[in-house]
Amino acid sequence: MSFSRLLVTFSLIMMMVISNETFALAHNEGYKIYGFPYSASTWRVLAVLHEKGLPHYPITVNLRTGEQKNPSFLSINPFGQVPVLLDGPLKLTESRAISLYIESAYRSRGTKLLNHENHKKMGTETMWMYIESFEFDPPATILTFEQAIKPMTGLKTDYKVVNETEPKLEQVLDIYEERLKNSSFLAGNSFTMADLFHLPNIQYLMNTATKRLFENRPNVHRWVAKIMARPAWKKACDANAWYDSVEN
Amino acid sequence: MSFSRLLVTFSLIMMMVISNETFALAHNEGYKIYGFPYSASTWRVLAVLHEKGLPHYPITVNLRTGEQKNPSFLSINPFGQVPVLLDGPLKLTESRAISLYIESAYRSRGTKLLNHENHKKMGTETMWMYIESFEFDPPATILTFEQAIKPMTGLKTDYKVVNETEPKLEQVLDIYEERLKNSSFLAGNSFTMADLFHLPNIQYLMNTATKRLFENRPNVHRWVAKIMARPAWKKACDANAWYDSVEN
Repeated sequence: MSFSRLLVTFSLIMMMVISNETFALAHNEGYKIYGFPYSASTWRVLAVLHEKGLPHYPITVNLRTGEQKNPSFLSINPFGQVPVLLDGPLKLTESRAISLYIESAYRSRGTKLLNHENHKKMGTETMWMYIESFEFDPPATILTFEQAIKPMTGLKTDYKVVNETEPKLEQVLDIYEERLKNSSFLAGNSFTMADLFHLPNIQYLMNTATKRLFENRPNVHRWVAKIMARPAWKKACDANAWYDSVEN
Repeated sequence: MSFSRLLVTFSLIMMMVISNETFALAHNEGYKIYGFPYSASTWRVLAVLHEKGLPHYPITVNLRTGEQKNPSFLSINPFGQVPVLLDGPLKLTESRAISLYIESAYRSRGTKLLNHENHKKMGTETMWMYIESFEFDPPATILTFEQAIKPMTGLKTDYKVVNETEPKLEQVLDIYEERLKNSSFLAGNSFTMADLFHLPNIQYLMNTATKRLFENRPNVHRWVAKIMARPAWKKACDANAWYDSVEN
């Protein structure tokens, strides 16, 4: 009798947990994403949405015509950047913050991108996320801008800047090479948010001469191949998938 | 009878929660921090430790003699940077990641720096943490380096760089001014990790000519005064407190 009561209590709690996620999903059919299908930062958030199998409503902000600097968009994000996520009245900017928000709201849905239950594992994952932000992203963004973004907009690549920046990226990749000798992914043996955060810059750089810096390092090369091959990532970079989405 | 059983179950769960934190504290009397008492990033982690009232064991890495680039330290952090946190066998780098790790391990101790229970509030807090990393930190770090770090090491400030960078910081501070019209702190009406993350650069910049950019904006000025006045922050920047700590 007392055991069955305990079972009922447990079942009730489980039902609350489950219905809470279901409710959140129903509610979040309203996740709206302001973005652009050729924007690296937009891809980061789309990758998380696809890893989680979540529906979303894209709203195109044309970066090629500078729409992100129009007063109407600046009233949405004064920094003039995409992506922006709307979840009902909640508005979030910064692709990494949006990614963590989605992961936190749907911990048990789709790919598990962080170890919320184990704060030590989460500590290592968070460290690799910040290594991406403060060590990898600065040189990678400069190299992407010079070799991928500038040519797209008719500007000339400054090879002096490229030559000065590549050694900085190499220093970072040497440390990654060492790390990836002993672990399949950066934060351990499963794919996490820390790996995902790297994808947008890598996607661009693999179509530039900087590609060789990744390919020269066998463990980095293996890691890059593995994370770029994820179906969620391929879908995130597919402009057709963006335009085919509902309510565009 | 069944109610008292429920009460026992609840009490047992509470005891587990409490003893888990107590155990963690006993264990973490071993938190070791490699750092330097004049390093802005070290201050960030110390501020969190003081906000939480946690004991810690400082290990000095003298940045003035370049000790962070010695092979013995590079084997601890290949990026050659402080702070590094050791929690038993776990080693963490990146001051913001370490800060989040400590907060996550001691959620209910000392100052509550994040809303772990409310993922929407946490989303806003995470967004402001990333705004610090990607909008505030880049210009602030350049201005700190040119006007505070260079003179300390006998190098000359490059005023061309200062003049080019200040307008970038001003754009960010204009957005902060607007935000702080309606809220006492960046992520809402209480001090959070998002505010704390800004302190190291602000501490340095308030002793440079760039100070006027903060003082010219009344809401930013009020916010700066409030966060700098926190006792935990004053202790974090106090080199004597570092050297007076246990086991140095």
